[in-house]
Amino acid sequence: MEDWLSVRTRASPHASALIIGEQEWSYAELNDLVDAYASPLATQVQPGQHVGVLIPNNLAFVCLMHALARIGAVLVPLNLRLTNHELTWQLDHSNCTLLVTADDMDERGSILAGQGRRLLYARDLIDTLNARDDFPKSIFRLDNPQAIVFTSGTTGRPKGAVLTFANHFWSATSSAFRLGVLKDDRWLSCLPLYHVGGLAVILRSCLYGTAVVLHDRFDEQAISNSLDSQAITLISLVPTMALRLLDFRGDRPWPSSLRHLLLGGAAAPPNLFKRCQDLDIPISATYGLTEAASQVATMLPQQIRSKPGSAGKPLLFTSVDIVNDQDQRLPAGSVGEIRVSGPTVMAGYYQDEQATEEILRDGHLYTGDIGYLDDEGDLWLVQRRSDIIISGGENVYPSEVENVLLQHPSVVAVCVVGISDPQWGQRVAAMVIQNCSKSLTKNELLEFGRKNLAGYKLPRVLHFVDQLPLTASGKIHRQLVAEQLQQRSHQAASDEKVAGTPLE
Amino acid sequence: MEDWLSVRTRASPHASALIIGEQEWSYAELNDLVDAYASPLATQVQPGQHVGVLIPNNLAFVCLMHALARIGAVLVPLNLRLTNHELTWQLDHSNCTLLVTADDMDERGSILAGQGRRLLYARDLIDTLNARDDFPKSIFRLDNPQAIVFTSGTTGRPKGAVLTFANHFWSATSSAFRLGVLKDDRWLSCLPLYHVGGLAVILRSCLYGTAVVLHDRFDEQAISNSLDSQAITLISLVPTMALRLLDFRGDRPWPSSLRHLLLGGAAAPPNLFKRCQDLDIPISATYGLTEAASQVATMLPQQIRSKPGSAGKPLLFTSVDIVNDQDQRLPAGSVGEIRVSGPTVMAGYYQDEQATEEILRDGHLYTGDIGYLDDEGDLWLVQRRSDIIISGGENVYPSEVENVLLQHPSVVAVCVVGISDPQWGQRVAAMVIQNCSKSLTKNELLEFGRKNLAGYKLPRVLHFVDQLPLTASGKIHRQLVAEQLQQRSHQAASDEKVAGTPLE
Repeated sequence: MEDWLSVRTRASPHASALIIGEQEWSYAELNDLVDAYASPLATQVQPGQHVGVLIPNNLAFVCLMHALARIGAVLVPLNLRLTNHELTWQLDHSNCTLLVTADDMDERGSILAGQGRRLLYARDLIDTLNARDDFPKSIFRLDNPQAIVFTSGTTGRPKGAVLTFANHFWSATSSAFRLGVLKDDRWLSCLPLYHVGGLAVILRSCLYGTAVVLHDRFDEQAISNSLDSQAITLISLVPTMALRLLDFRGDRPWPSSLRHLLLGGAAAPPNLFKRCQDLDIPISATYGLTEAASQVATMLPQQIRSKPGSAGKPLLFTSVDIVNDQDQRLPAGSVGEIRVSGPTVMAGYYQDEQATEEILRDGHLYTGDIGYLDDEGDLWLVQRRSDIIISGGENVYPSEVENVLLQHPSVVAVCVVGISDPQWGQRVAAMVIQNCSKSLTKNELLEFGRKNLAGYKLPRVLHFVDQLPLTASGKIHRQLVAEQLQQRSHQAASDEKVAGTPLE
Repeated sequence: MEDWLSVRTRASPHASALIIGEQEWSYAELNDLVDAYASPLATQVQPGQHVGVLIPNNLAFVCLMHALARIGAVLVPLNLRLTNHELTWQLDHSNCTLLVTADDMDERGSILAGQGRRLLYARDLIDTLNARDDFPKSIFRLDNPQAIVFTSGTTGRPKGAVLTFANHFWSATSSAFRLGVLKDDRWLSCLPLYHVGGLAVILRSCLYGTAVVLHDRFDEQAISNSLDSQAITLISLVPTMALRLLDFRGDRPWPSSLRHLLLGGAAAPPNLFKRCQDLDIPISATYGLTEAASQVATMLPQQIRSKPGSAGKPLLFTSVDIVNDQDQRLPAGSVGEIRVSGPTVMAGYYQDEQATEEILRDGHLYTGDIGYLDDEGDLWLVQRRSDIIISGGENVYPSEVENVLLQHPSVVAVCVVGISDPQWGQRVAAMVIQNCSKSLTKNELLEFGRKNLAGYKLPRVLHFVDQLPLTASGKIHRQLVAEQLQQRSHQAASDEKVAGTPLE
């Protein structure tokens, strides 16, 4: 077997592969470009080595993804919103021997390189004049790792989910057998390519021989224009984006070409389904996670009318159980932990045996998410992993934020929680006890945090308190913290907000 | 992993699975029926054992196919048109320990049973009152054989192509990524389920979660009604059937629901493409063979307009080379043997090492078919395996017919060839030298052949001659035999035809 872009190019060279703005590349054209990227890379990277990629959604990223597969190297896609401190840790932990950054990242790149890690700019790789395909291609195997995708960690450290081509293959196939696939499909993707949602769309479209309409970010105007003028058939959005797009478009009818608006990443507010149905938008609700190569379950538009809020049935080949604390399977209707099995489940976390053993046992993925299956086998997500905050599609783990804030010498104790927000789904909020001097201000603490945390992880609501509410057993009562912060947020929303919003 | 009907039933229990006439079964209903079949079978058949199935296209056959997969037994689908002599040989050769026949085959069944082979009627298997699912299910593995499908043999003996679930899986997947798949697809299948074309439609529809509209045979009226009233989206036909259907329907428009009329099994006459295009019928031309689990290459309707006659590009994951007698790959445009590689290529012929080694070398399938790839990579079939006659979709191997006729004591020499026929594609024709007594009549010889040959293999044109045309090297000049028989057939068509037509 060869890499997927090679076989796809032979199977349908003239089919449209990628559309960015007004530019369009066929599979044959993309394939040539990928050779131009792979050729110089092959001289610097051995099969099996890890390559960090810190680039926005653009042609270079798509080419790199295929080029690394072609030479047998493993992609480590990096979140552009992380601090240099966070990125350095991820690059070190994943043993990246090479880092490819965008052309305008000179300063950042030089900080992240070093310690045996070379730095390349995307511009230095592409050399179409010298494009040749006689570099050593790797033997492509489905079981080879395709990428290490970092997820924020519950223990304060991100974890690198190792996803194989097989994971993606089974995900692509069973997604196609749920959503359908048509030769002229165009999948609009504005999710970051360093998230599994964005990554998966590129790979599955290559398998299908269909086109990706790639946006570098979520911009209502641009996405809306794209929908109206580019015959989009599928679009992936997180609920926050869908709401913003609905607001932006108002009553304007959505294009009839659209087969699925795939909603994932977080629980969707009920009125979102209602608004979509009023506009005849074919909304499909999904439940998925990085560790299962994206989609686990998906409910189709026809069924959502009678069951808004459910994520539907697991995809073919994927099975979902609900288990209790003793690993016993619970009957329909009982709420418990969502456990996922099947060929899309990751190989494990990279060099983190302990975390891997916690989440992967006997071939089952213990998601930590809470939900139930109804008596028709449809999945309902009750609550994401209790410790996770999802704000505008980005995952934030409270413990990671807490650990950073605790490093400030004036901070005694911190509790970070998510509080609900009509636009972003959730916002990060914190309750902080400072030491007796009481000299620390909110802005000082946030400035301190900003050095080590991506902006979207910073608390939008922050309160200094004298004590944290405790449970009977003396642990911090997170639920009560959240309720109190939610109340205060309502009372004095304006002066507690910190400038900046998620996903900007 | 579990059998495909199990996973499909969980993924979309209410989706339509099978439609026969006015009756319709959902996947959940089909799944229950399959348990009712599998439960008694599991007491009689061990995993890995072979089960002959001699049943027309009907619900029982579909259920048996899934039931055997569920208990881990291997399906040996048998051609209903074969003689008892031919069937006994296939049952013996494939080590079938059990034969399941249709309810009305008492006499035939008892002839074929015996010698350690038990006989069951389909009616004795199904017992919905006692349907239970607590029988031992086999561990389903993609590499397990799904079926042994017999193809006529060049050396006079049929060969049993061992097809695994993996072969079917990759075929289904790459076919979906060429033809597309939609939730509401309905695939009309009137090809016999003992042919790979019929078999594949059942298995792939199960993977896709779509419906099969099954007909027990090709009947213009019934197929035409089905097309008009059952929202058919795909239909598989051999050219003979397509021509008959076109004749039957005349100028009547074809339904707009139809996405693909898949044409396979034999080369199609050029005017067939023209007629389809005049009626806006989305014709897709395929090249495939049993040994590659059906489809190898497929050209889509949009491309056929500019390249009528080509079978298009190989499916994803399948590769096609053209090689010469020395196994050297030939450049674009050069005519040679079509060689196929990829995950749909069979495991081999059952218990026939020699035939397997002849056709399978270094993972390549040497099809014996003659063709070329044009400079865009599209496949053109020039000639089916020189020794094969394809009449109305059935394969006839001259040597098999010759060997039978030669057993008549008055026959000295025989040459069997295919001559072209506007309706059937080809007809079987024979030139025969009898001994000096000259007492043998055509009808006597055909009666003799009928005992050991399925009706469709009997020569439609038969001439006694005093000598056969020879090549310079002294071999029978088959090409010249064909030309002479073709001429004679034109001159005196009526009195040389034997009653009965293929596919009746």
